[in-house]
Parts: sequence; structure tokens; C-alpha cells
Amino acid sequence: MNARNYTDMLQTALAEARAGLAEGGIPIGAALFDTQGALLGRGHNRRVQQGDPSLHAETDAFRNAGRRRTYRDTIMVSTLAPCYYCSGLVVQFRIGIVVAGESVNFAGGLDWLRERGATVVDLRDQACIVLLRDFIAAQPALWNEDIGDV
Amino acid sequence: MNARNYTDMLQTALAEARAGLAEGGIPIGAALFDTQGALLGRGHNRRVQQGDPSLHAETDAFRNAGRRRTYRDTIMVSTLAPCYYCSGLVVQFRIGIVVAGESVNFAGGLDWLRERGATVVDLRDQACIVLLRDFIAAQPALWNEDIGDV
Repeated sequence: MNARNYTDMLQTALAEARAGLAEGGIPIGAALFDTQGALLGRGHNRRVQQGDPSLHAETDAFRNAGRRRTYRDTIMVSTLAPCYYCSGLVVQFRIGIVVAGESVNFAGGLDWLRERGATVVDLRDQACIVLLRDFIAAQPALWNEDIGDV
Repeated sequence: MNARNYTDMLQTALAEARAGLAEGGIPIGAALFDTQGALLGRGHNRRVQQGDPSLHAETDAFRNAGRRRTYRDTIMVSTLAPCYYCSGLVVQFRIGIVVAGESVNFAGGLDWLRERGATVVDLRDQACIVLLRDFIAAQPALWNEDIGDV
């Protein structure tokens, strides 16, 4: 895996984020890959669409990947730095690599993930930054609800 | 809230755990209450039943509670110490109190939750201990899969 691979993988997550926005949802997308680059599952935030606060992008991608014996050989790619909930998913299931599209709008649990030994790649992707920045500006209350902030 | 209240709340989580076992699933149950003791949502591990690795007991209870503006005034009760994934849920959404039926079979993220400022109550409940201990003895591979252990 290299930066080019990660950038390619990010496009899947970004397509999910845009699909979520088109549905009227919060535009955050994610995808789980194996270390050979094969897609295992993809998903996006579904708080609004399904009234389900448990479906952040990363947990949706994880769910859609289905049951696996181990996740040590997987890569979690998200348009945004994973929050503590989704970072906890990475820690518990020992997902080895986390690729974040950006951490400008929200830094999430990236430092904690590094402390816990995950490899963290922050792509500082401009399309991801703009997509979420514009959404937060338009719907601050919904964004705050999604991260448990008041 | 006092120990008696927490023990009463635990019965809801324990009933969920037993329902999960009866369905052929992993017997861990949880329930989310407000600080007045009103039940907001209840659930149980559904890895086996729905082939969904994202539905730990706590996330299922959280999901079933639906969208809320804030979770600071809520209590997460689980038959087992929450794993890092479910502890991350507590941290991100600032759930104030975590009540664990037991932490003998699995200590999860209890120490991390305390570090992060959550109030953690460990009830050391014998029924919870025996229920999961017997399950782990009977199905060790399934248990290891559920916590991402190899």
C-alpha cells in the first residue's frame, strides 16, 4: 500500500459521503479494505435516513463487511477522522491501518489511535474538507448531534 | 440513583442477554436509561442472529433509543464491561454513567472510561458472570470473534 492506493481507496469513501448527502444525510463515508486493496464493505452515515444514531460511516462499512474471523489485515478508510466511537471499533477489532480523508473539521480519536498502535494516514483531502465544512456551516445542530456535542 | 436502582436496571439487560442466548446468539444484553430511571432503549448482541458484527449489546440498545439531542443525562447498563468499541460510544456521546453487570470474564474499556471521566459501577453480578462464562466455555471461537481476538 502507498499514498496512491490510499487516495484511490478514499474515492470509494467519498462516493459514499456524497450518496449520503444526496439522501439528505450527513456527508461522511467510509470503506473497509483488505491489505491487498480488495473492498470488503462500504457505507455512510445514516443518522437522518434511518433515524439511527449508531450508524456512523465507519460502523456502517464495518457492518456491511459482515462477519470475519479477524480484522488485523484490514484498512478502514473514512472521509473524516473517526470519532471515539469509531476509533473504539478500530481498537477493539485491531484494524491495523486507518486512512482519514481529513482531520481539519474534526480530529476525532486520531491521537488515541496512534497511541494504541494503529497506523494512521491523514490525506488532508480538499474535497473531503470542503464537503463536510459546507455541511457543518449549513446544519450545525445536526452535526453537533452526530458527535454528541451540545 | 443508587445500587438498588442499578441492580433493577441490570435485570432489563440480563433479560436481553437471555433472549439473545435463546436465539442462538452471544448472551450479552444492555439497556439505556435516563437519570430518572426511564428506559430509553434495550438490546442485545446480534452478531449471530443478523450476521452483523457491529451490533454489540450496547450499540443495539443505543440504536433502539433512537436519536437524541444529548446523552449526557443517560446511563448505559450492560451485563458485561463494555469493549473498546462500546466504550468509545460512551466517550463520544458523553454518556455519564456506565453500569457493568460484571468484568470478570472481560474487563473491556472500564479503566479507559474512568480515565475519561465516566462514572463506572461494576455490580459483580453472579448471574451475569455465570451466563457468559458458560457461553465462552461452550463457544470459545465465537466469543473470540466477537471481541476481535484470535
